[in-house]
Amino acid sequence: MTDATRHDGRANDQLRDIKITRNWLDHAEGSVLVEFGKTRVLVAASFTEGVPRWLKGKGTGWVTAEYEMLPRSTNTRSDRESRKGRVGGRTHEISRLIGRSLRAIIDTKALGENTIVLDCDVLQADGGTRTASITGAYVALVDTIEDARARGLIPKNAQPLTGSIAAISVGVVNGTPVLDLDYPEDSTAETDMNVVMTGAGGFVEVQGTAEGAPFDRDELNALLDLAAKGIGDLTRMQTEALEAPARERQR
Amino acid sequence: MTDATRHDGRANDQLRDIKITRNWLDHAEGSVLVEFGKTRVLVAASFTEGVPRWLKGKGTGWVTAEYEMLPRSTNTRSDRESRKGRVGGRTHEISRLIGRSLRAIIDTKALGENTIVLDCDVLQADGGTRTASITGAYVALVDTIEDARARGLIPKNAQPLTGSIAAISVGVVNGTPVLDLDYPEDSTAETDMNVVMTGAGGFVEVQGTAEGAPFDRDELNALLDLAAKGIGDLTRMQTEALEAPARERQR
Amino acid sequence: MTDATRHDGRANDQLRDIKITRNWLDHAEGSVLVEFGKTRVLVAASFTEGVPRWLKGKGTGWVTAEYEMLPRSTNTRSDRESRKGRVGGRTHEISRLIGRSLRAIIDTKALGENTIVLDCDVLQADGGTRTASITGAYVALVDTIEDARARGLIPKNAQPLTGSIAAISVGVVNGTPVLDLDYPEDSTAETDMNVVMTGAGGFVEVQGTAEGAPFDRDELNALLDLAAKGIGDLTRMQTEALEAPARERQR
Amino acid sequence: MTDATRHDGRANDQLRDIKITRNWLDHAEGSVLVEFGKTRVLVAASFTEGVPRWLKGKGTGWVTAEYEMLPRSTNTRSDRESRKGRVGGRTHEISRLIGRSLRAIIDTKALGENTIVLDCDVLQADGGTRTASITGAYVALVDTIEDARARGLIPKNAQPLTGSIAAISVGVVNGTPVLDLDYPEDSTAETDMNVVMTGAGGFVEVQGTAEGAPFDRDELNALLDLAAKGIGDLTRMQTEALEAPARERQR
Amino acid sequence: MTDATRHDGRANDQLRDIKITRNWLDHAEGSVLVEFGKTRVLVAASFTEGVPRWLKGKGTGWVTAEYEMLPRSTNTRSDRESRKGRVGGRTHEISRLIGRSLRAIIDTKALGENTIVLDCDVLQADGGTRTASITGAYVALVDTIEDARARGLIPKNAQPLTGSIAAISVGVVNGTPVLDLDYPEDSTAETDMNVVMTGAGGFVEVQGTAEGAPFDRDELNALLDLAAKGIGDLTRMQTEALEAPARERQR
Amino acid sequence: MTDATRHDGRANDQLRDIKITRNWLDHAEGSVLVEFGKTRVLVAASFTEGVPRWLKGKGTGWVTAEYEMLPRSTNTRSDRESRKGRVGGRTHEISRLIGRSLRAIIDTKALGENTIVLDCDVLQADGGTRTASITGAYVALVDTIEDARARGLIPKNAQPLTGSIAAISVGVVNGTPVLDLDYPEDSTAETDMNVVMTGAGGFVEVQGTAEGAPFDRDELNALLDLAAKGIGDLTRMQTEALEAPARERQR
Repeated sequence: MTDATRHDGRANDQLRDIKITRNWLDHAEGSVLVEFGKTRVLVAASFTEGVPRWLKGKGTGWVTAEYEMLPRSTNTRSDRESRKGRVGGRTHEISRLIGRSLRAIIDTKALGENTIVLDCDVLQADGGTRTASITGAYVALVDTIEDARARGLIPKNAQPLTGSIAAISVGVVNGTPVLDLDYPEDSTAETDMNVVMTGAGGFVEVQGTAEGAPFDRDELNALLDLAAKGIGDLTRMQTEALEAPARERQR
Repeated sequence: MTDATRHDGRANDQLRDIKITRNWLDHAEGSVLVEFGKTRVLVAASFTEGVPRWLKGKGTGWVTAEYEMLPRSTNTRSDRESRKGRVGGRTHEISRLIGRSLRAIIDTKALGENTIVLDCDVLQADGGTRTASITGAYVALVDTIEDARARGLIPKNAQPLTGSIAAISVGVVNGTPVLDLDYPEDSTAETDMNVVMTGAGGFVEVQGTAEGAPFDRDELNALLDLAAKGIGDLTRMQTEALEAPARERQR
Repeated sequence: MTDATRHDGRANDQLRDIKITRNWLDHAEGSVLVEFGKTRVLVAASFTEGVPRWLKGKGTGWVTAEYEMLPRSTNTRSDRESRKGRVGGRTHEISRLIGRSLRAIIDTKALGENTIVLDCDVLQADGGTRTASITGAYVALVDTIEDARARGLIPKNAQPLTGSIAAISVGVVNGTPVLDLDYPEDSTAETDMNVVMTGAGGFVEVQGTAEGAPFDRDELNALLDLAAKGIGDLTRMQTEALEAPARERQR
Repeated sequence: MTDATRHDGRANDQLRDIKITRNWLDHAEGSVLVEFGKTRVLVAASFTEGVPRWLKGKGTGWVTAEYEMLPRSTNTRSDRESRKGRVGGRTHEISRLIGRSLRAIIDTKALGENTIVLDCDVLQADGGTRTASITGAYVALVDTIEDARARGLIPKNAQPLTGSIAAISVGVVNGTPVLDLDYPEDSTAETDMNVVMTGAGGFVEVQGTAEGAPFDRDELNALLDLAAKGIGDLTRMQTEALEAPARERQR
Repeated sequence: MTDATRHDGRANDQLRDIKITRNWLDHAEGSVLVEFGKTRVLVAASFTEGVPRWLKGKGTGWVTAEYEMLPRSTNTRSDRESRKGRVGGRTHEISRLIGRSLRAIIDTKALGENTIVLDCDVLQADGGTRTASITGAYVALVDTIEDARARGLIPKNAQPLTGSIAAISVGVVNGTPVLDLDYPEDSTAETDMNVVMTGAGGFVEVQGTAEGAPFDRDELNALLDLAAKGIGDLTRMQTEALEAPARERQR
Repeated sequence: MTDATRHDGRANDQLRDIKITRNWLDHAEGSVLVEFGKTRVLVAASFTEGVPRWLKGKGTGWVTAEYEMLPRSTNTRSDRESRKGRVGGRTHEISRLIGRSLRAIIDTKALGENTIVLDCDVLQADGGTRTASITGAYVALVDTIEDARARGLIPKNAQPLTGSIAAISVGVVNGTPVLDLDYPEDSTAETDMNVVMTGAGGFVEVQGTAEGAPFDRDELNALLDLAAKGIGDLTRMQTEALEAPARERQR
């Protein structure tokens, strides 16, 4: 399925250039600079012993995420949420989505009473920041769990990970379903959908929105097919990144 | 499709008792007390001339929504968001969903430079508060537009409404796809999905989340079928409510 | 004392239509929809074991209240205090008044280390929202204490209630002292007074304000006489409401 | 009416030592350090041209007040409201009371489109901070209006002041009605009342609260008599302060 | 070094009139009204047993400060930070400077697990509010420690104070280095420097800022010389104030 | 001056490895990833037409800065200031310092009524984040001004830059004055000083703090000498970075 109509020449089912750089940071237990084309997200994973108050004594751990955009990650500068004194709805919504997605492949019992926070800070935004965040956060999460295991913070044989997870956007642009929308595509899409799937092909989140006219069941099916194809590609790239040797953290 | 397994005896594709009471308030241009079983949402629509600053001078109107739960709408009392000094992520997320859903059937050009705010306050929560809000808000929106037309605030022949809209939840409970989950079902569902559709059967929002194990394409299809059935029922009830005479507002 | 001058035809010492509907909600231990004419306040009482930190270990309970207006309870929509990120002075002031008034008839020792919160949410405002709140909250409080007793949360023979409480507004409108002002009266009153009294006739709060010219001792006396008459009427209605069978809560 | 029972030896109808020091500040158009015994409030009046947005173009002025306590004005230190990020209910309530009281003797038309803000900062608190604030603010207000007149900001013959205003607390302590309660009295009073009156003897605000048992009509009358006596004394002291030469402001 | 060019006739190395009034307040363990010319700061010191959570169990005490300006301390009124809901950067910065400066002469071990908070509220501002705050706070701190010793809250032989501390501003005004700038000088200075020194002549803080053109090493040296001279004068005045009998606090 | 005592083997007057990567971002008019050893700050400069309200119509521009640390830039994760709802004192203080420093080499008249915001986000912190921010921000500022000139937003011949600016930390560690402290040195330094200087050698800011014992004039002089040496090195590196070809921004 090739198509000359995308403004950057990609095929309709083609991802942008994806880069996953592990251990981009030195302090964080796991970290990834993930790039989907010009979109760049820095994911830093923090492992801490203990859990939030409402989980104490239950023998289970917690994985959560905080997403935020740097003020000049976008084309025109936005005010900092810290300066405004409140976190916007979109920021909250995406933070919750990332956390939920990661917990879908975590056995919190196996994690013990420990917490992992995934900070996803968008350094540059060009569409797909939430899907890049989830895709990169998975890799940082794996490294964090290995680091905790190596330091004896979780048992050697504990298996907190029950699978892998990735996310991709699909949408209908100029009447055609396409994969991995960049900002110019996203801002003109008639329908926009974010799909989070496990490496094994199960759905974890499906969030589709008609931006213009409502979409029908056929379009929905076409988009889900594209998403499954993209998730397959991302899963392979995550595996490759995790199998390649990573930069040594300087501690 | 009947099933004895639902705790309240409903068939799997059966809605709860739905009540739509128009003009429950006297001041608001449109208002609805909408009940999905024990879930009760008071929707108040406010029509004001003018638009937010970023829309000024473009000749288009604006429709937005604010959702909030009363502190004791739930089984145990929650702190007020006004007292906490910040609005939670879930509240923001649902407010945005309601606003987006209503704008999907609004021609903002035809609305002129006017704003309609839909306040959806949950008086009692028993699952499905966002779907009840959207379903009720549509009815309040119709009444508000008629009121504005009657008062000459929008032209006699303007048609800001391009269709009807309703929303319903579906989910997999005990392995079975069911329609319109109440709170006990919602809190044990393996998969939870909210679907917003037009009366004409187009999708406006599809938001599915695996609460436990990921779901597959077949389950997704079964849930979408159930949702379409439920939306059909709700659309009919909205029409009946709008055709019946409404209580006179005391002004 | 009859007078043709009130815009709705009431006698100067006549209350509006008062309705007290018990158990309007299903989750709350006690709840009342109280109506003073078009003013409608939903009172939800929440009984919780334990007390605020500063009371711990003293063997006494706590009763408090939170008052808030829905954004479109009024003629024109107001911004939500949760969205503004701060609670306004008037909201704080009325919340404090309601809490103080209810504590005047509570023996906190007899309550044990338990807390009752009275949430008073104004669904529709037409004057007298604070007096309706207090009057309705008393009824919800009685039901809540009975519910706690029935569930064994307070001893069978404990008597936390030391009396009944009600509140009413009085004011000088067009030079004439009148009872239970609605919004049109309230907004043109020269003097406005809220009086909280026990069923036994003792004063708990007297808050009088000259909106225009100062008032003299004679006017003050006339207003207090009217208030005493109105409190007598309300006390009788509270008793009747509490003696009538209430709707069963669906739990 | 003399009585040996007050802990500081005052007669029941006797004020504490009252000092009113005008022009305590150099920048403020009017300022007063007002002392009721150990209670010390610094009142600074700011005259600015223009009015809040909602009053613009109506040809009337505005008088408002902001009350706040320094963190160590009290026996034990309280957190700053600026650090807490929100203003407490009591602070709001008293600020509103002071503003309302001063507006009762202001002809806002005669003030022109100008605003006077009265900042009442409690340097030391020993009961009666709100009554000291109102009593002192009146004097600062007179000086501010004269300053504005002298600078030509309001017309020579404009008479924005329609009278004088003062405030005093009264209460029932150990069963006896007394005037001008200090903190030890206030914290043990059975009934507490703040009364704001004009120099001509009209009531502007009456706020009585039963702290313990409800009070009856006789007690209410006794308290109002005491208040009238105290207001008479304060009015005379305000006049004396205004007639005495004031310190020159160093500008 | 005399110079006719300063607008108030002072020599270039001459301080303004300095007044240090101890025990200006009755409740606070130590308090000082400190005046540098027209600048007046009320310092209230609060001694409390216990330390912030992050210091618990370490056997050391804590000294901290909060600085704030009254809204009309300045020539034109500023909004209250409590009303704005956030504390400004300058306020934070000066609060931190004062706290750091005082801790430089405190042996926190000798203080035991106790906390002293220095509230520095600017009643009137005419330049040098932070230096007046530090200079006055030292005196209040000495009195507070003596009070704690007298009450047995710290051991008789404990020596929490390791020296004295004072602060002064210096700057280049009209090309000439001068000491203790008032507001008119401060607002036109080319270079502005605040210096905190111990009585023994050691530097604790040096904060110099070029307001216009950068300054060179010679200017820097001239300013440091002036500062050392001023600190010497202030140290002598602090000693005199502490040796003079102080007003008795009325408790 | 070589010394074996620094934990990373540097000479006492030696900077860490400094890297200045221009145009690290694509949207921002100017951007720099600046690294001082492990400290990494992403500076993004935003040029916008127009100035803040208080500068309007004066014909001058504005340069300001906002500094913030990512939550996991540090060894242990800190809460986000946006989540806390307030910006901390240190963050404010450093933001103000950066803005002031850059304005010292800007002729705001020559900038016209335009605003440049420098966002300095610390991706990884290892001491010297404020000095790296200033040093990098200067380079981003130069690029931004050139970009504005190229786009005709400022006149071809306008010269808003009056010099160059850089910053470095110096301190006394283990009794020895050293240049460019990393975090382990900074946290054990007896004296800590940040110096901002122009490329021409003028002082713009000198901020020295005794962390332990006060410092004397000789130590101060030794630190200033070191700082001057370091600024010289940094100025040369800035020049080299600006003369080298930069990555093309992908727009």
